[in-house]
Amino acid sequence: VAGKSRERMLLSAVQLFRRHGYNGTGFREVVAHSGAPRGSIYHHFPGGKAQLGAEAVTFAGESANAMVLRWLESDGVVAGLEKFWASWTRYIESSDFQDGCPVVGVAAESHPEAPELAAAAANAFELWEATFAAALRRAGITKKQEAHDLALLVISSLEGATVMSRAARDTRPLVRAGRHVARIVRERLAATD
Amino acid sequence: VAGKSRERMLLSAVQLFRRHGYNGTGFREVVAHSGAPRGSIYHHFPGGKAQLGAEAVTFAGESANAMVLRWLESDGVVAGLEKFWASWTRYIESSDFQDGCPVVGVAAESHPEAPELAAAAANAFELWEATFAAALRRAGITKKQEAHDLALLVISSLEGATVMSRAARDTRPLVRAGRHVARIVRERLAATD
Repeated sequence: VAGKSRERMLLSAVQLFRRHGYNGTGFREVVAHSGAPRGSIYHHFPGGKAQLGAEAVTFAGESANAMVLRWLESDGVVAGLEKFWASWTRYIESSDFQDGCPVVGVAAESHPEAPELAAAAANAFELWEATFAAALRRAGITKKQEAHDLALLVISSLEGATVMSRAARDTRPLVRAGRHVARIVRERLAATD
Repeated sequence: VAGKSRERMLLSAVQLFRRHGYNGTGFREVVAHSGAPRGSIYHHFPGGKAQLGAEAVTFAGESANAMVLRWLESDGVVAGLEKFWASWTRYIESSDFQDGCPVVGVAAESHPEAPELAAAAANAFELWEATFAAALRRAGITKKQEAHDLALLVISSLEGATVMSRAARDTRPLVRAGRHVARIVRERLAATD
């Protein structure tokens, strides 16, 4: 039960960061959102909001990575990328463009007082880049640097287009960027044949 | 003088949004940062923080656009893009990775109570896309949709890589994404010759 309540707090933090960012999310709001007793958050996160924030970012990064990995492995890098991107786009739309990436929700703000937040976000971005790069290498882009640069293009464009789609309250930036990125990946793979 | 103090408040809001986002920036902090008398902010922005926020985003969007436009016109689309990207990267680094894009600082959060914020951000993104697309079309990418999709790739990747560089406290994501995007633009221009 202790494990459950701790995990519920992490999930609540992720959900609130998606929508309001880290600065816009109060420590107490996380407790209220999770339905946990008020004092229990200090039991689970003695380091306070920064500890909760860093763990929530790590949790979000690893969950997203596991999901992407499944798609890349079952469908290959191009179809996997397209399916993941389409699913992400539907998710953003289904939230009425209120939700975004929780890692960006934390990393788009400066937190010099809590460097563990940026570090957790950097680790999440690196994990995703490594996952895409490994899939690209398996698919034929054998040069490590090239696979990593292409993976970085995918992730940076996804994150930027997500913010743009939320602003426009329209899936088009995400749909167009996704189509373009998939085309580039396809061309690069064709060029290595 | 009234115009000056209004403009100082906008500049202060932009600077605070870069660092803390909209939710992390207090209305009073903007006044304090700008050095204006406390009551005067309601005189200049009777609509409160949301009005100030939307105008600051518009102001930031137009300033960045004017700067990019000068580079694109004086150096052409490839060198202009590279110079702008390098200058932006130096700026982020010189802030010790504390500053980011003020438009993302507002648009990465959800503000259903103040739709003018997302609308201002969407306008800024569209303005930048139109500026890059026009430069690409002048350089030889005559199809409108193709020029716009390439411009969107540039901007989405820039915004995503900015967040990634701040998280990593390292210019590398920005430098690598910029080099990659410039390469893609160069290849597309070569293919239209």
